Amino acid sequence: MRVFWADESGLPASDRGLAYGDGLFETIRVEGAGAPLLAYHLDRLVTDARRLGIPVQKAELARVCEEAVSRWCDEGPRWVLKLVLTRGGGGRGYRPADRIEPNLLVARASAPERPAPEGVIAGFSRVPLTVNPLFAGIKSLNRLEQVMAAREISGDHFELLMANAAGHIVEGTRTNLFVATDNGWLTPPLESVAVAGIMRRLVIESLQKAGQALTETPVLPEHLSPGVCAGLYLTNSVLGVVGVRRLAGQDLPVDQRLATICRSHIAMD
Amino acid sequence: MRVFWADESGLPASDRGLAYGDGLFETIRVEGAGAPLLAYHLDRLVTDARRLGIPVQKAELARVCEEAVSRWCDEGPRWVLKLVLTRGGGGRGYRPADRIEPNLLVARASAPERPAPEGVIAGFSRVPLTVNPLFAGIKSLNRLEQVMAAREISGDHFELLMANAAGHIVEGTRTNLFVATDNGWLTPPLESVAVAGIMRRLVIESLQKAGQALTETPVLPEHLSPGVCAGLYLTNSVLGVVGVRRLAGQDLPVDQRLATICRSHIAMD
Repeated sequence: MRVFWADESGLPASDRGLAYGDGLFETIRVEGAGAPLLAYHLDRLVTDARRLGIPVQKAELARVCEEAVSRWCDEGPRWVLKLVLTRGGGGRGYRPADRIEPNLLVARASAPERPAPEGVIAGFSRVPLTVNPLFAGIKSLNRLEQVMAAREISGDHFELLMANAAGHIVEGTRTNLFVATDNGWLTPPLESVAVAGIMRRLVIESLQKAGQALTETPVLPEHLSPGVCAGLYLTNSVLGVVGVRRLAGQDLPVDQRLATICRSHIAMD
Repeated sequence: MRVFWADESGLPASDRGLAYGDGLFETIRVEGAGAPLLAYHLDRLVTDARRLGIPVQKAELARVCEEAVSRWCDEGPRWVLKLVLTRGGGGRGYRPADRIEPNLLVARASAPERPAPEGVIAGFSRVPLTVNPLFAGIKSLNRLEQVMAAREISGDHFELLMANAAGHIVEGTRTNLFVATDNGWLTPPLESVAVAGIMRRLVIESLQKAGQALTETPVLPEHLSPGVCAGLYLTNSVLGVVGVRRLAGQDLPVDQRLATICRSHIAMD
């Protein structure tokens, strides 16, 4: 694995990450001298690299992350460490070389502003979400759908939800979703999501630990209607749990239950 | 637009092409001092850039291509000019910046070997093809499906054909397809293809000009069975028309009709 520090250089022109999106990325929240969810991120990165056939060692990635945190720790109390892992260069067109040497680009980004605790405004994207079952959940570099959906976010909107061809509401452009109902929590099944967020896994673990009912099931528009939906929460590992107070013009209740359950499972603040 | 020459540098670390596959590419066959299909490539690039909201001028792209051809013309009689056009840097995560300055990476690659005129061997990929209707036909940088399918090409196989969720045979990893039947030619409709090849357009124009029947219709496995299929041809702009003499263990007839029709429409050799 070749390591590139984004404050020194980009990846070589021949990199397959640029050419084909042939790689993966992680955006890791760093606080002070640590990254509280690092183990989850490295788990996912290594698992998904294996799914794509990109050879990588978790211990080596962990060392680079440690170096990155100490390299940039003076730049602020809260920032985002970004890893881009690609299949490296070489190959004949789409077909990779027989021997793969991955490239890892390591970058620092500023942390996004935290949404207000009373909740955010969200809507629906017109961009359909298509998920190849082979890549479901993988945070690959093929993210044009999310880019085109994010272009539509405007004004006071925090997020837009994306639906698949079956009309199931699957996720936001940069968040997974959890719906509170009188019969417990709902979240779209793993095989339907484009990105299986770190925070999605952590919320599921937290709900299980707290003994709360959770069903992984397709979320239909009617699940988000005022009579049925007792709360809609968006999650990602950088922002944690974000309540939605208004969805497509309809008010929704917001409380801190889910955030509190997750916080007791692992320190999120 | 900022222009980067791949023999001098790659794109900046912050480029959105690497981060999200937020861009497009073209691979253009160069012969001697010219690129016979350049006008088609620039047409597609400008049209698809508009679909993605990447601002670009055709005249400026044409100037860069001219410069590239004279820069590398001494390196051989036949090579491939590769353009990677991205939305540049900036933005907040997936969401692009309000003001976009695209990046253009210009690279030279060697031309692939020409397949023998008696035809090639092809099979079927196990990787399903998923095409977001918003991006149908766009040669974007989101090509992980094609990479994963191309990884399966082995031995004496030239290409693998990919099917969508409906079971329609849509295209090869790097080729579009045309089927000869007793009722004329068939090719999958534009809205179903991941990449609408330059050569696909040229073949359609050539067949129309030659007064041959062509139907854009979903290609089913039975269309490729020996009784029905009077020939299967794969096309891309670098290799032209490639006949398939053996598909998944079944022999198919190969002749030069389609290649001849195209050659009379525009010089392919």
